Amino acid sequence: MYKVTFKFENGSAVETFANQGENLLEVAREANAAIDAPCSGNAACGKCRVQLVGGELEAEKTAHITDEEYEQGWRLSCVSKIVGNVEVMVPDIASAYKSRMKVADLDSAKEIEIFEKTKSDIENAGISFRNDLEVVRVTMDPPTLDDTMPDIERVTWAVEAACGVDHVKIPFTVMKNMAETLRTYNFDVQCVIRRAENKVEVLDLCAPEEDIKVCGLAVDIGTTSVAALVINMLDGTILAKASAGNGQIRYGADVINRIIESLKPGGKKKLQDALVKETLNPLIMQMCRAAKIKPKMIYRMCVAGNTTMNHLLVGVDADPIRMEPYIPTFFETDCVHAQDLGIAIFPHAKVIVAPNIGSYVGGDITAGTFASCIWNKPEMSLFIDLGTNGELVFGNEEFMMSCACSAGPAFEGGDISCGMRAMDGAIEACTIDKDTMQPHLSIIGEEGQKAVGVCGSGIIDLISELFRCGIINPKGKFIREGERIRHDKYGMGSYVLVFKEDAASVKDVEINEVDIDNFIRAKGAIFSAIRVMLSTLDFTVDMIDNVYVAGGIGSGINMENAVNIGMFPDIPIEKFHYIGNSSLSGAYTMLLSNEAEAKVTQVAHNMTYLELSNEPTYMDEFVASCFLPHTDAALFPSIIPDFVQR
Amino acid sequence: MYKVTFKFENGSAVETFANQGENLLEVAREANAAIDAPCSGNAACGKCRVQLVGGELEAEKTAHITDEEYEQGWRLSCVSKIVGNVEVMVPDIASAYKSRMKVADLDSAKEIEIFEKTKSDIENAGISFRNDLEVVRVTMDPPTLDDTMPDIERVTWAVEAACGVDHVKIPFTVMKNMAETLRTYNFDVQCVIRRAENKVEVLDLCAPEEDIKVCGLAVDIGTTSVAALVINMLDGTILAKASAGNGQIRYGADVINRIIESLKPGGKKKLQDALVKETLNPLIMQMCRAAKIKPKMIYRMCVAGNTTMNHLLVGVDADPIRMEPYIPTFFETDCVHAQDLGIAIFPHAKVIVAPNIGSYVGGDITAGTFASCIWNKPEMSLFIDLGTNGELVFGNEEFMMSCACSAGPAFEGGDISCGMRAMDGAIEACTIDKDTMQPHLSIIGEEGQKAVGVCGSGIIDLISELFRCGIINPKGKFIREGERIRHDKYGMGSYVLVFKEDAASVKDVEINEVDIDNFIRAKGAIFSAIRVMLSTLDFTVDMIDNVYVAGGIGSGINMENAVNIGMFPDIPIEKFHYIGNSSLSGAYTMLLSNEAEAKVTQVAHNMTYLELSNEPTYMDEFVASCFLPHTDAALFPSIIPDFVQR
Repeated sequence: MYKVTFKFENGSAVETFANQGENLLEVAREANAAIDAPCSGNAACGKCRVQLVGGELEAEKTAHITDEEYEQGWRLSCVSKIVGNVEVMVPDIASAYKSRMKVADLDSAKEIEIFEKTKSDIENAGISFRNDLEVVRVTMDPPTLDDTMPDIERVTWAVEAACGVDHVKIPFTVMKNMAETLRTYNFDVQCVIRRAENKVEVLDLCAPEEDIKVCGLAVDIGTTSVAALVINMLDGTILAKASAGNGQIRYGADVINRIIESLKPGGKKKLQDALVKETLNPLIMQMCRAAKIKPKMIYRMCVAGNTTMNHLLVGVDADPIRMEPYIPTFFETDCVHAQDLGIAIFPHAKVIVAPNIGSYVGGDITAGTFASCIWNKPEMSLFIDLGTNGELVFGNEEFMMSCACSAGPAFEGGDISCGMRAMDGAIEACTIDKDTMQPHLSIIGEEGQKAVGVCGSGIIDLISELFRCGIINPKGKFIREGERIRHDKYGMGSYVLVFKEDAASVKDVEINEVDIDNFIRAKGAIFSAIRVMLSTLDFTVDMIDNVYVAGGIGSGINMENAVNIGMFPDIPIEKFHYIGNSSLSGAYTMLLSNEAEAKVTQVAHNMTYLELSNEPTYMDEFVASCFLPHTDAALFPSIIPDFVQR
Repeated sequence: MYKVTFKFENGSAVETFANQGENLLEVAREANAAIDAPCSGNAACGKCRVQLVGGELEAEKTAHITDEEYEQGWRLSCVSKIVGNVEVMVPDIASAYKSRMKVADLDSAKEIEIFEKTKSDIENAGISFRNDLEVVRVTMDPPTLDDTMPDIERVTWAVEAACGVDHVKIPFTVMKNMAETLRTYNFDVQCVIRRAENKVEVLDLCAPEEDIKVCGLAVDIGTTSVAALVINMLDGTILAKASAGNGQIRYGADVINRIIESLKPGGKKKLQDALVKETLNPLIMQMCRAAKIKPKMIYRMCVAGNTTMNHLLVGVDADPIRMEPYIPTFFETDCVHAQDLGIAIFPHAKVIVAPNIGSYVGGDITAGTFASCIWNKPEMSLFIDLGTNGELVFGNEEFMMSCACSAGPAFEGGDISCGMRAMDGAIEACTIDKDTMQPHLSIIGEEGQKAVGVCGSGIIDLISELFRCGIINPKGKFIREGERIRHDKYGMGSYVLVFKEDAASVKDVEINEVDIDNFIRAKGAIFSAIRVMLSTLDFTVDMIDNVYVAGGIGSGINMENAVNIGMFPDIPIEKFHYIGNSSLSGAYTMLLSNEAEAKVTQVAHNMTYLELSNEPTYMDEFVASCFLPHTDAALFPSIIPDFVQR
């Protein structure tokens, strides 16, 4: 056994042990040392680079490592083998995915106004915000020698009387501690109940004077990030909000790699643990601390996530999603409870799962579509969710069509060498001076925060600006020279945003032609999907009344720049609306309102799914879209001709 | 830490470690070394005696140990403290409760005929032997690109069609592995289902050609012993039968001591584990091996046990059963599943619990009463269950009354120095030659088995014979002399059944006046309970048409001797019927027939409960019954006057 030490830029370290010949990335995963591997360890993305600072490693040299870098000790961990004790340094850019969990400051109105707006939009659409959870105080006569009814019957009768129902269900979990609870509080208790028509289910028995908060947990499970709310189920107040990276990311950036990892022995459990034990449970604990509640007070949960995330969460085999004919185990399910998944809230809390409508259009989209309210409007709306991959829904109150496009993880910083999620240290916006080619950056974080990388909205700005300034051509190739422009020995150009001296990173923050190419493909996938979906319906882009943009790309998204690079159609800019994390807002409303929960299922049933890969025009449209802004400039008439002609 | 070694007569040993000052009995319990402690370690019963064979112990001398025995190293483990390394020998009589599990030989018709008779009696009473478990073969079209229905919907539709129902429930446990199962068997599976009216619940998906045995498990959980059957739910065949000692016995012989132990920290779990993990699960494993089935094929379970056993099994607080006003958590429950209790069968198997009707009349009695069929007869019948304590039910098709009497564990060999359960080595019957006073014994076990102790039926014979031969007087005191009669220095008499040279024990098998007194109190409790219950109904014993005797006292019970000692009323001997373990036969029928299950609940609801301690005449009746056969000889007219007058 050899000792393996992973050192991080923040000074922390993880020590573990490994056998001769073990793969360094696998060793890191086992030890839960954060090394990003978007390609899941296939030497394809170059993200898992580490620097050898002590001991030895046996590692191939790959195209992702230059000669100079190799000299400096840089290696890809996915191709490195343990051959002795070793100490490696993991750069921030590779470990940034494992973000510090972030609990939002709810005193800042900005954090919650989007949820309140969603709620009021949905209320205006006629949905009542009531749910079936209640607290009732139940006072019983204690038993005597003349009144020897068993506890269960005593509680049943008392709840029947208190609620005016004639059927009361008491589950095992409540029965288990009933005797102690009743006697501790002298047969005077509060019951947390679920009422359905003439029936009541008792969920919990509590002290008579306890300040019971009946809470709910709404979670958006993204492939890359997880965001959650804790709410008061009785009045809808948001008590806490937080987000974190999805701990599964070390098993690959996209759902396909995750599924492949889940097929290995013990894989389903490993992927479920990475999500539940490493991500959700710590997040829940932090939120409960912020909200000053106990996790056991969370009596219901609603999850919105893509179909693969749903399946990995529930622990069912996701492989058939990946393999033709792409069949999930479930679209809808109502048999899941927190304890089945190991989620550390009230064990018998029901887990509502926002319904999937296909293997590649999941609950995040049905919940998000619901939150956008396009299902209630006569106007034609386009809903775009930019997460890992992109999903689109187009329609109105009469019909809706959805599709998914393989945009990859570029909008969340994946597939981009300096890419990262929208978190502290991310460049979220930028402009470039056309003459000096000097950038002006906007970095997420406190005053003085140094750049670590670039998030989705920043990349849109960056590419748009590089193009506007004539630094790159419509194919994304560098065509100007300057101190920030470099070419490697193969001729590949790159642009340095921040030199390493000024960055919070061990290397320059720069974007190269491969990155730009990856991003152009991603934006091309979105734009061509819009075109193809609309054309199957005999619609054109000028018939779109509203575009709702959602997702983790960042609230800083500059819609004009997104049009400029040909990602979104060239329609009046006032038609675009950024609606934030609509998957989470949707889950929030489903949690709070039984009517909303039912309506989302109805919305899902009303949505048709278009499989783009079956559309004969899609590949041509995609290829034509892989230019800045497009091979057909006529599609972008508002873009200044000079700017396009370059 | 000191090393503590428990050696057993059969040559086995248990080694453990303990700290200075720890109690030897507690150390034995922790190490699961079998030392019987019917009084739960209160130095009251004298059963936990061990012989010091090495090292040292600090132990008080108690009345249970004679000077000579103390010299020989005999100690009570409950009053012994660890003060150094120690080695003790545990005599068979103290460890016999931890019986080798016994799997019955079903080729012997005797083992199952009683269940078949019960079943046919109940069928004759108009109860149909059908249950709601079925196996259906379901063949689906595998999904294609044109038929992308998710697995759950595909199975739901197929089961709806196969079963002709319009509602199918698929629980989490089935959903969890559905994708693999369907694909392994190419969408052609067998479903184990539960059908209720127009609904079906899918319990399990299996291979298309698998020889599925849908099995059920019936268990009688006695305070002292556990007996169980594995049956084929589809045709009612008994596949295996086995019994074992209740592992809880090291926490005390009676329910009160068990409850007290369960109140200690971690106690509920400890008592549940002793029953489930140490007793039931090994028993189930043995039976499955004998029946050649997998434990996961047991899809339902029915438990009959007294109210305390039910509560300790389920893991709920049993203390209120013990304390005035004696309130259990439940009489009936239908929310318990195998996995809730850690029972190693199909995890989601429903656990049917035979209903209790009071804190001291439990499911063993309702199931047993059902099995006796007294609820279906116009004649007046008395049902007597002789387990640990005794319970009585009297009535007919129109009414039934039940009561419990504190007879203690004497019928199962408890409270008797040489007492043991009806198992190998137990003297189950005896006669004594009036002149020579030599006994003739019948011992359970193979040819040549030596005596270890005496079980309930043997004690009845023994006391009846000692009395008939004029060796003891009506008060149970020794009044003859002989080689087998002894008196200790306090004058206490005893009779040696087997001298230690001929016994499978380290000491003589003998019965003393304290034992006889204990047994007389036990039989007095039964007889006085019969008298008092009948008199509250204005009945007399001669109005009893049938007496059904059930319980672990042993099939060898001699009814005439039981009348001779005044345990049963002096009515024609042909009215008495031994019906074996009626609790287990009742559970067997409840498991196999939904109608029987419902009928038992109805029988329970129709039964009134008489609390004997509230009856003013009970104490006088009890005192009058504590003689052989009774202070009022007129109650036993058929017993030869000479025999009574002595």
